[in-house]
Amino acid sequence: MVSAADSPGNDIKLFSGRANPELAEEIGGILGIPMGKIHISTFDDSEIHIQIEESIRGQDVFIVQSTCQPANENLMELLIMIDTARRASARQITAIIPYYGYGRQDHKHTGREPISAKLVADLITTAGADRVVSVDLHATQIQGFFNIPMDHLTAVPILAGYFQENRVPDAVIVAPDAGRVKVAEKYRDILDLPMALMNKRRSGIGGREVELLDIMGDVTGKIPILIDDVVASGTPIRQAEELINAGAKGVYLAITHPVLVGPAVELLKSPNIIELVVTNTVPVPEEKRLGGKVKVLSIAPLLAKVIWRIHHNQSVSHVFEEENIMFPV
Amino acid sequence: MVSAADSPGNDIKLFSGRANPELAEEIGGILGIPMGKIHISTFDDSEIHIQIEESIRGQDVFIVQSTCQPANENLMELLIMIDTARRASARQITAIIPYYGYGRQDHKHTGREPISAKLVADLITTAGADRVVSVDLHATQIQGFFNIPMDHLTAVPILAGYFQENRVPDAVIVAPDAGRVKVAEKYRDILDLPMALMNKRRSGIGGREVELLDIMGDVTGKIPILIDDVVASGTPIRQAEELINAGAKGVYLAITHPVLVGPAVELLKSPNIIELVVTNTVPVPEEKRLGGKVKVLSIAPLLAKVIWRIHHNQSVSHVFEEENIMFPV
Amino acid sequence: MVSAADSPGNDIKLFSGRANPELAEEIGGILGIPMGKIHISTFDDSEIHIQIEESIRGQDVFIVQSTCQPANENLMELLIMIDTARRASARQITAIIPYYGYGRQDHKHTGREPISAKLVADLITTAGADRVVSVDLHATQIQGFFNIPMDHLTAVPILAGYFQENRVPDAVIVAPDAGRVKVAEKYRDILDLPMALMNKRRSGIGGREVELLDIMGDVTGKIPILIDDVVASGTPIRQAEELINAGAKGVYLAITHPVLVGPAVELLKSPNIIELVVTNTVPVPEEKRLGGKVKVLSIAPLLAKVIWRIHHNQSVSHVFEEENIMFPV
Amino acid sequence: MVSAADSPGNDIKLFSGRANPELAEEIGGILGIPMGKIHISTFDDSEIHIQIEESIRGQDVFIVQSTCQPANENLMELLIMIDTARRASARQITAIIPYYGYGRQDHKHTGREPISAKLVADLITTAGADRVVSVDLHATQIQGFFNIPMDHLTAVPILAGYFQENRVPDAVIVAPDAGRVKVAEKYRDILDLPMALMNKRRSGIGGREVELLDIMGDVTGKIPILIDDVVASGTPIRQAEELINAGAKGVYLAITHPVLVGPAVELLKSPNIIELVVTNTVPVPEEKRLGGKVKVLSIAPLLAKVIWRIHHNQSVSHVFEEENIMFPV
Amino acid sequence: MVSAADSPGNDIKLFSGRANPELAEEIGGILGIPMGKIHISTFDDSEIHIQIEESIRGQDVFIVQSTCQPANENLMELLIMIDTARRASARQITAIIPYYGYGRQDHKHTGREPISAKLVADLITTAGADRVVSVDLHATQIQGFFNIPMDHLTAVPILAGYFQENRVPDAVIVAPDAGRVKVAEKYRDILDLPMALMNKRRSGIGGREVELLDIMGDVTGKIPILIDDVVASGTPIRQAEELINAGAKGVYLAITHPVLVGPAVELLKSPNIIELVVTNTVPVPEEKRLGGKVKVLSIAPLLAKVIWRIHHNQSVSHVFEEENIMFPV
Amino acid sequence: MVSAADSPGNDIKLFSGRANPELAEEIGGILGIPMGKIHISTFDDSEIHIQIEESIRGQDVFIVQSTCQPANENLMELLIMIDTARRASARQITAIIPYYGYGRQDHKHTGREPISAKLVADLITTAGADRVVSVDLHATQIQGFFNIPMDHLTAVPILAGYFQENRVPDAVIVAPDAGRVKVAEKYRDILDLPMALMNKRRSGIGGREVELLDIMGDVTGKIPILIDDVVASGTPIRQAEELINAGAKGVYLAITHPVLVGPAVELLKSPNIIELVVTNTVPVPEEKRLGGKVKVLSIAPLLAKVIWRIHHNQSVSHVFEEENIMFPV
Repeated sequence: MVSAADSPGNDIKLFSGRANPELAEEIGGILGIPMGKIHISTFDDSEIHIQIEESIRGQDVFIVQSTCQPANENLMELLIMIDTARRASARQITAIIPYYGYGRQDHKHTGREPISAKLVADLITTAGADRVVSVDLHATQIQGFFNIPMDHLTAVPILAGYFQENRVPDAVIVAPDAGRVKVAEKYRDILDLPMALMNKRRSGIGGREVELLDIMGDVTGKIPILIDDVVASGTPIRQAEELINAGAKGVYLAITHPVLVGPAVELLKSPNIIELVVTNTVPVPEEKRLGGKVKVLSIAPLLAKVIWRIHHNQSVSHVFEEENIMFPV
Repeated sequence: MVSAADSPGNDIKLFSGRANPELAEEIGGILGIPMGKIHISTFDDSEIHIQIEESIRGQDVFIVQSTCQPANENLMELLIMIDTARRASARQITAIIPYYGYGRQDHKHTGREPISAKLVADLITTAGADRVVSVDLHATQIQGFFNIPMDHLTAVPILAGYFQENRVPDAVIVAPDAGRVKVAEKYRDILDLPMALMNKRRSGIGGREVELLDIMGDVTGKIPILIDDVVASGTPIRQAEELINAGAKGVYLAITHPVLVGPAVELLKSPNIIELVVTNTVPVPEEKRLGGKVKVLSIAPLLAKVIWRIHHNQSVSHVFEEENIMFPV
Repeated sequence: MVSAADSPGNDIKLFSGRANPELAEEIGGILGIPMGKIHISTFDDSEIHIQIEESIRGQDVFIVQSTCQPANENLMELLIMIDTARRASARQITAIIPYYGYGRQDHKHTGREPISAKLVADLITTAGADRVVSVDLHATQIQGFFNIPMDHLTAVPILAGYFQENRVPDAVIVAPDAGRVKVAEKYRDILDLPMALMNKRRSGIGGREVELLDIMGDVTGKIPILIDDVVASGTPIRQAEELINAGAKGVYLAITHPVLVGPAVELLKSPNIIELVVTNTVPVPEEKRLGGKVKVLSIAPLLAKVIWRIHHNQSVSHVFEEENIMFPV
Repeated sequence: MVSAADSPGNDIKLFSGRANPELAEEIGGILGIPMGKIHISTFDDSEIHIQIEESIRGQDVFIVQSTCQPANENLMELLIMIDTARRASARQITAIIPYYGYGRQDHKHTGREPISAKLVADLITTAGADRVVSVDLHATQIQGFFNIPMDHLTAVPILAGYFQENRVPDAVIVAPDAGRVKVAEKYRDILDLPMALMNKRRSGIGGREVELLDIMGDVTGKIPILIDDVVASGTPIRQAEELINAGAKGVYLAITHPVLVGPAVELLKSPNIIELVVTNTVPVPEEKRLGGKVKVLSIAPLLAKVIWRIHHNQSVSHVFEEENIMFPV
Repeated sequence: MVSAADSPGNDIKLFSGRANPELAEEIGGILGIPMGKIHISTFDDSEIHIQIEESIRGQDVFIVQSTCQPANENLMELLIMIDTARRASARQITAIIPYYGYGRQDHKHTGREPISAKLVADLITTAGADRVVSVDLHATQIQGFFNIPMDHLTAVPILAGYFQENRVPDAVIVAPDAGRVKVAEKYRDILDLPMALMNKRRSGIGGREVELLDIMGDVTGKIPILIDDVVASGTPIRQAEELINAGAKGVYLAITHPVLVGPAVELLKSPNIIELVVTNTVPVPEEKRLGGKVKVLSIAPLLAKVIWRIHHNQSVSHVFEEENIMFPV
Repeated sequence: MVSAADSPGNDIKLFSGRANPELAEEIGGILGIPMGKIHISTFDDSEIHIQIEESIRGQDVFIVQSTCQPANENLMELLIMIDTARRASARQITAIIPYYGYGRQDHKHTGREPISAKLVADLITTAGADRVVSVDLHATQIQGFFNIPMDHLTAVPILAGYFQENRVPDAVIVAPDAGRVKVAEKYRDILDLPMALMNKRRSGIGGREVELLDIMGDVTGKIPILIDDVVASGTPIRQAEELINAGAKGVYLAITHPVLVGPAVELLKSPNIIELVVTNTVPVPEEKRLGGKVKVLSIAPLLAKVIWRIHHNQSVSHVFEEENIMFPV
């Protein structure tokens, strides 16, 4: 009864949580594979229920789920999906987390705080993930929070590429604070532009209150491209206004993760903001796009390429270096 | 500089998450200790932030948090609180989870489902809890999902005690299904009443759809006290109506966990339901109490007693057996 | 020296412990593979010694061993076999445990008891198993005691199939207690028969003393098919006599695991017992079969099919649903 | 309600398995504490059931259980006792294993063997032990199989002390093989006697077959005291006969663990064996003592002293060095 | 024999590795306790051997060992000391690592690099440490690499305090790169001075080659106090020369960890360097102090205070906030 | 985009640390594969930095690194290499450790010592190794210190083979102490020679001081071949001189691991030593070979064969038994 003519049990199975199904479908389209069949629902009592509706025994499972808002819902959904896949005997489970929520809680700001970014890494590992892929983490040290292999990608070439095709006159790259100088230098090198740095100070609970200290470099009469990793409740937009106060003629924002909560969308309506260029690691519904003022570039080709290379055991870093899709440093 | 005249570092520190702070305060009042100072907030982007605002180094920390609706929010809040306490060098961390959410997902109903109740146990252990206390778990095997010590309490004596003081004429204890017969027997023994059994069948996603098969035992002309562990979207209330259809004159419900979501409160307005007697493991806001028709008994004295005994290393099971506050079997 | 023309290292290697070698050989026969060469002996001092006598490096190893009586001997033998296979560099180790001993100790009946079914799961995982297969667990939650994948099969279609081919006149399916109602419903649905329920109460040490409370449903003048998961020292046989007392004309027993210890075989001689239909998850020696009164059906085809599908990464649940060999619910 | 006048939760609780209850009681007598109340039974189906019958919450629990024959029964009993104590919230669990079964399976003799002594160490740790105490391990490296603290004691001073009080004329210490030379030297130093060495070769399954190669040192006309760690099925007794063949006038045996199985007792009846001096790490029933020819010395004072020192956080090694009860080297 | 009049087993035991014994002794002097007796040696074959020469059973053990150069020697020595303490039954083991070597390898600079700072955290945890204390980590996220409690202290108030007592005219605080701006702000706030920022770029293997890009802020005619966490082979000193090139009159360096290897001491001889102020987290031998030009302040009072507070379960963060010895942010 | 025409991701990737690169290159030559590209350097501050310079994603990685002197450097280098390979997504990581440093610290000689050989095993496992290969471990129980598969090889057939080709007249095999008798027997059986045993006693710190007690067997007028596992600072050479004192005419030494530190090379110059025959598990630089007196045989063919068999899932023990390259017993 034993024969060799059987399926090798090594197909790509691609599943999406409910955080960004459009992104997952786009990835599937690029890879030419259908979305894995899964039923996800929320009961009246707010508990999530999941059933995977096709066999994944021995397969190479990829789960796409950003842990953006609602962060706790999306995270628990991811954890339960991983548990389901593990108990269904997947050969390997890779969590593709385009936006890694809780990433900003990566260290203690004062005594008796959690390190939630580490806790989240431990929870993902406990649930049974074998590997993690994420994009533009708030701190690159988060990669070290995992002992399972983690591929840390960057969307900078995608965002910078947009400005290569749409040259901004009198442009200057602006780093929003000291921690982003290295990323700003990537933009500077790709776009061959001057660079300036805003010096901000974090305070308040969880360091979420921000105060501008000063601007190093010249922005007067310039059109800054202010870069950052996340725009949540609007800090980069407020910083853009400070650039206007300092003499800038208008501001472009180039930011990987468009979390866009609280007053952010309202702030965006300011005429001083020319355009906000982001990726779709976090879905941006039409009503938040302000008729095109928010330009959403797709991260799907990058993620599709990574999934392909992981599945086929090809180098991730090598190709990206060639294509200038380098990792953050 | 080394002296012996120092604090022994073994105080009870009692903290509450945001799921049921009134219960936690009631426990603190009984124990005569103030609530631990903690700041919990949710950022615009939906992430939870926690800071413990007093030293707990070397102390015996108890965290009260039901994982009722919103289940994922409350669970993540619990996990982050545990992580905070661990990193703040608590000597021992006990998670008091009066209502254990995801408890009904304790086994696979079909292939490729998660076992979320086990996943939750693993997450709590990973976050750093040293011990867990919970009340009337959906399945007693959940106790075995933990390797850390777990005290599994029951509210049956509290609920049955209410009917001892408020005798119902022509009463009969009704078990809602086969799985609850043993608990029904506890009521029967305490109240010295006859017993009947409803035979229901679960189907649908996650086994949440229920169909009545038949009633074993006589309820005609009687006033059933229908018992259960959870009333969520209203299944026990629907079963009460079936008892009316079978000839009952009116129905009391005695249920530990008043999750009360979806159509449950509306269903409760039926004149056939005389009273729903519950505990405060899940908070019941005033508008859901229907002017007193929902009677909420407090689990706080039981939990205060357990915390006291845990802290002072006294037997939990012994005293409860004496006081007939036995564990479920 | 590196060539591609080498064995892929992915053969099925099937080993048997000493608990039920006939079953293992039957499985091997169906799969068309020889039994793996292994030497197992017990020294004078009662310690077990094991040596695997062929290379299993990189192979897919299946170990068949029920942990039936002598339970501790068989369990330790299983653990040592797993350790041997791990240290001999097996690629994957699946423990096929047709009868999972200690399964009835799945929760605490009172304070200060072990949860031995969980302990056994932890021991099996510690020894190095990658996956477990078992049949008709005493409680389905035991599946959640493992974090490694576990396939939980059922013998109900095999047992019910026997009665499909051998129709019993005036038959009624009887569930021995509330916990088995769902399984009884499977029989009822396959055989299209009425159903009754016996209400028993467990007490004594480890809940092994049983008292009949009452019978719900009509058995007078009927021939009950009393179902259960285990017949050990004879409780189901005693319950059969109670059915006779209640008016039944004779009783068939349909039980997965024929542990048959203590007075069980003697009790079986009663003329009220027409037939005991079991599987060979636990071996039944000829002298216990009472000249054919104990009918032993083979679980081997089911286990062979599961091993085949696991090895070839095919869905287990899918096919079983098709063939009505569904998992218990 | 919080007061300081409570029990500190730090009593010694001493429990015994069924392997050597007399030894445990002797230890309790020396320490002046009663045996912990525990109910241990074996069901008809051969499974062990345990219940601890007094509160041990927060206490310092010591479990005395040799894993001598029946080895698998005694080991599983030990593991279940540890699991029970852990779930009953003991503060610290110390397994006192006077005779560590499976100790001779401490390395692979050939390919595809287990390392059962390591497996047993892992099982004990998994079950929840915090610390282990054992006596005269077959290989001292077994101590390294544990990561939890392990106190490795020796009975050599007790055995040698017997010969100090009962001087043997023309005595010579004989090491049974190369591996025991260091232990033989301890005897030689304490008793100030000459020493000889037997050179034996192990072969067969698990290395249990033994062949004498030669004797180094003079035994002609002497009365050897042949030392060893274990006498199981009689190898040391057979070696004693070889000493007679080589010219010895009679032989004393000084051996820590009297496993005494198979033909051992029969072999002991030989007039060439003058006396077998052992300890009670393994119980020796009256019928095996051959009217006093087997002299059993008690290890209880040593174990009582160790328990006392562990509980009171006093050095174990320090005192033993003083009293020449040194660890083996 | 059981009495209550015994030592509580909770003394501070302070041990020093060979990395910085003078610091450890200074700590012991402040705490008024003798150094724990330990024998550490290196064999001819370069392996380290350790023996603790007094009982530490049940005691609160603190091990002082920087993992400065020779980093691998000092790290292995720390790991073996922890293993020794664990096997000797210490109640709690705290690793005091004033300088955390490999801290700069906290993330991948490119593909296929290790994250050695995480590996080191895992090794320390595996060896058996219960808690870690360190000072001015290269990245604060390293705290999250541990799941055991970790107290992250800062020497900034000690270093800044020196300049409070020795006011420098025309001083300006200079941050050496973007990553140190927050620490520079601490100095600025304590000393009430202006601040400037050097923009450097890391490249080469492991990012150890550094190139100055520009200076933001005015240093002409000023005397900069250039701050940093580590001076190893001399980068800060080279940066000081760049400040001179930019018009500074002379430079003070305020740096926590004086690793001082390679050409660093030679570079320090430059007349442009007025003073290098450091702590003794890494020992500075007399010949490297250049006749007082290197000013070494002691971290011992801070560490003694932390040990005291940890042992007595008092808040660490609370007092430090009061005394402005805040944690880094 | 999904196709099957991709690399299977299962190549041998062979990397060498800096302990014995010549050996690794010889292995690569035999296997016909190039050395994996890796950059290893040591910074001025003594920290090691590693980068793997080719993709190993999904490949079968073998790392060759003896942990000989400098032991701590080589061990840390090995651990960092493993961490690098794990984070670079190797499919399987095998650590080839020809000489296992710290192997002699395999048990406690007295109280409060570490068991460093176990600590090293735990560190290697923590870093992420999946499998370990080593040669002639000091104690065979070290194999049990690992739970990951470990292949324990022996160089005895290689060393004995040399003497088969170069027959020594009047030769006698001499075991240096009791612990090596079994290995000596291997030589005796292969070479068909008589055997003698030296009885030595270890004392001092870590048992590194050695005293000769006596010689069992005749060496007068003979030419002993003294065997051992390690020659470090020269103990076997000193023992050879004792053999001369006892009447031997000259001595050959046959020792697997030529650590050769301290006075060893000087001692070797004695005319009584005819030849020291070793393997290249530890590199022997030309100046230590004394013009050919130290004969170095290559272990590379054995290791190449093992790597080949591991990669192709073929039995390791089987072939070695055939070729008399048996494992030690």
